[in-house]
Amino acid sequence: MISIDRSSQTADLGDVRVANRAVVLRHVRTHAPCSRADVAARTGLNKATVSSLVGELIEHGLLRETGLTENRVGRPATMLVLDGSRYVGLGLRIGADELVVVAADLAGERLLTWRRAFAAATAGPPETVRALAALTRRAVTRVTGAGRTVLGLTVGVPGLVDADGAVPAAPALGWHGVPLAADLRRALRDPGFPVGVDTDANLAVSAELRHGPYAGTADLVHLSGGLTVGAGLVSGGRLLRGGRGFAGEIAHLLVHPGGPACHCGRHGCLAAVAGVDAVVRRLLPDVAADGPVTDYLPEIERIQALARAGDAPVRDGLAEVGRHLGYAVSVLVDLLDPEVVVVGGHLAALAPWLLPAARDEIAARTSGPPATVRLEASALGSAASALGGATAALATVEAGQLPVACPLDRTGPGCQPR
Amino acid sequence: MISIDRSSQTADLGDVRVANRAVVLRHVRTHAPCSRADVAARTGLNKATVSSLVGELIEHGLLRETGLTENRVGRPATMLVLDGSRYVGLGLRIGADELVVVAADLAGERLLTWRRAFAAATAGPPETVRALAALTRRAVTRVTGAGRTVLGLTVGVPGLVDADGAVPAAPALGWHGVPLAADLRRALRDPGFPVGVDTDANLAVSAELRHGPYAGTADLVHLSGGLTVGAGLVSGGRLLRGGRGFAGEIAHLLVHPGGPACHCGRHGCLAAVAGVDAVVRRLLPDVAADGPVTDYLPEIERIQALARAGDAPVRDGLAEVGRHLGYAVSVLVDLLDPEVVVVGGHLAALAPWLLPAARDEIAARTSGPPATVRLEASALGSAASALGGATAALATVEAGQLPVACPLDRTGPGCQPR
Repeated sequence: MISIDRSSQTADLGDVRVANRAVVLRHVRTHAPCSRADVAARTGLNKATVSSLVGELIEHGLLRETGLTENRVGRPATMLVLDGSRYVGLGLRIGADELVVVAADLAGERLLTWRRAFAAATAGPPETVRALAALTRRAVTRVTGAGRTVLGLTVGVPGLVDADGAVPAAPALGWHGVPLAADLRRALRDPGFPVGVDTDANLAVSAELRHGPYAGTADLVHLSGGLTVGAGLVSGGRLLRGGRGFAGEIAHLLVHPGGPACHCGRHGCLAAVAGVDAVVRRLLPDVAADGPVTDYLPEIERIQALARAGDAPVRDGLAEVGRHLGYAVSVLVDLLDPEVVVVGGHLAALAPWLLPAARDEIAARTSGPPATVRLEASALGSAASALGGATAALATVEAGQLPVACPLDRTGPGCQPR
Repeated sequence: MISIDRSSQTADLGDVRVANRAVVLRHVRTHAPCSRADVAARTGLNKATVSSLVGELIEHGLLRETGLTENRVGRPATMLVLDGSRYVGLGLRIGADELVVVAADLAGERLLTWRRAFAAATAGPPETVRALAALTRRAVTRVTGAGRTVLGLTVGVPGLVDADGAVPAAPALGWHGVPLAADLRRALRDPGFPVGVDTDANLAVSAELRHGPYAGTADLVHLSGGLTVGAGLVSGGRLLRGGRGFAGEIAHLLVHPGGPACHCGRHGCLAAVAGVDAVVRRLLPDVAADGPVTDYLPEIERIQALARAGDAPVRDGLAEVGRHLGYAVSVLVDLLDPEVVVVGGHLAALAPWLLPAARDEIAARTSGPPATVRLEASALGSAASALGGATAALATVEAGQLPVACPLDRTGPGCQPR
């Protein structure tokens, strides 16, 4: 259904066509292969409109005919599927100890997932931008070499991101006032596709909305686990951004009065209890003595091995972190009433020992009706936010805007050289 | 602009008409008096469409012609205004020590605001329903006696409200599992208009969105102050309800470790620190000795008088409550990034002594860019949520749905007797 924004603009026919284009794409995405007649019948659009839209979408390389015909009464009908072969979105992620790039097509297929070990907190913004640009160029070369067109790129950052794609603050990386989108565009020398930036948590929750077991959940939270802990918030099917785009900051929620010191100056903040650096240092004291950690994966694996082997201090430590995490989740549940809360990053890796304690804490804290929220580990892996970035780049097309790119005869202004 | 819901339904012409009807109504509401030509010029709709819609809206008693004509070049034009005279929405509120009923028309004019001293926590659900029904009948009689039609009624409750208008839990009133909407409908003997229930906080924030200095703010929170403290959350222009409709619970956020005992069994919850009963008992120790309070207004006035007179313990006590309130607000600000947070109820009455300390706490807690959120007292008075209830009843009309009520010749099925 159409819902109306709070503005004075009217429903003119151009908007209606964009809306209907989105409906056709969405229908084919979920019901492919299907015929034009199927689309008309299931969406309520008349057949002439469907034919016109489908023709347009085929011309722009968003749909294609498979040549299959159904067995049905009457004339055989040509079946339609999304054309995954044309357009690709790229997503990058600045992780605690790595950079990740994912390329995905309109059908949601991941074409590549590459990781490069990289400690952005140590390297600093200019070096990180250079590394992101290099990774991007390699991915673009691979993708265009296979005949595809990059529609856009979105970078996920563990910090605040403003409306211009700049990072006012990412304490986890030691960054302040970094014009990331502009710097990356410059480093890529005007790449010919849009470059955006969003928070790790927002991109991860967007990925959960599209892929995996909780796809389509209207009220969903993703808690991203990394150097910081951020929340991607979906309510009524929409990502919440807030007035300045800074929604989802939960790192400094007081979860453990008198607990560990936080870099912000206070004690017992969620990030100081459950961030990856805090967890590693607390459970592996030898690591703390060695100085800054630049590669967390081996340490997380060590913690997993100890926990599996039944190491009591590690299991107790994880349970305690789980209880504090459970308090934080209960605050989110009380405030936003999500159906599902998904944890990612190292929180997903350690979920078997964190989440039982967290769920107990949530159940104990409910003063109203019993909590029905599901608290689960993300099934999307640590590339969730990069996958979200890749599909963010595709979102405008899915909303019914035709790509400012190449028609099939490659005469458009957005055409990239093969 | 049109935004697309996550469903397969298409933009058919009926929806377009509903959308355009809403645009015309909204334009007239904000620019009255104005002519049909003005509406067409400012909204982009063509003149024939505007004429047709305006005719329909006049016939249904939503717009009327004033007979005034502008001084302008060319033919004089008849001016349009909202027709406030026909439809009325009713809002009820179950407060800490009173029941409130507000009647408001489409133009936002309050036709009546009545209060009845009533301690719902002491009286219990059946008695409260009887009292609400009696108050409603008096208001309906007044309103229909003046020739108007009641479009709907919404009751505000300080507790959880589910999708059926039942109250699973309102610990502030000692209520559990109260089918309030159904009970009230029964008590009103099928009143011929819809009866809804929502939380106090949701209705109050809806009222802030329509009326007063923060009307139209896209990212706004209202903290309702009463026996409990609830949050009405607006993000991206939409009220957040959550999966079960239970969003906005903030009463048990830990704000003061080791602080006062809460009825939920824990200590230092926001409601136990800043709820009206907690504040009154803490600042007026003689009240605590007297047993249950059934009328908070005199106590709040006494606190105001002492604070104005510079009473140090009262001022210090209010500042401490303000600091804890500031922490709670900072959690909301970090999570939702609102532009404005408005406090209502007794929190508004005590704002001059609460909010400075709260603002200091917010400013001290910001770890990223400086907090730009405005924290203010509601200008709408303690009837804010009842006003919100009255306009909730009018919302479907404003969204462009024609009322299921009387055309001017009074031949429709929804016609109430004069």
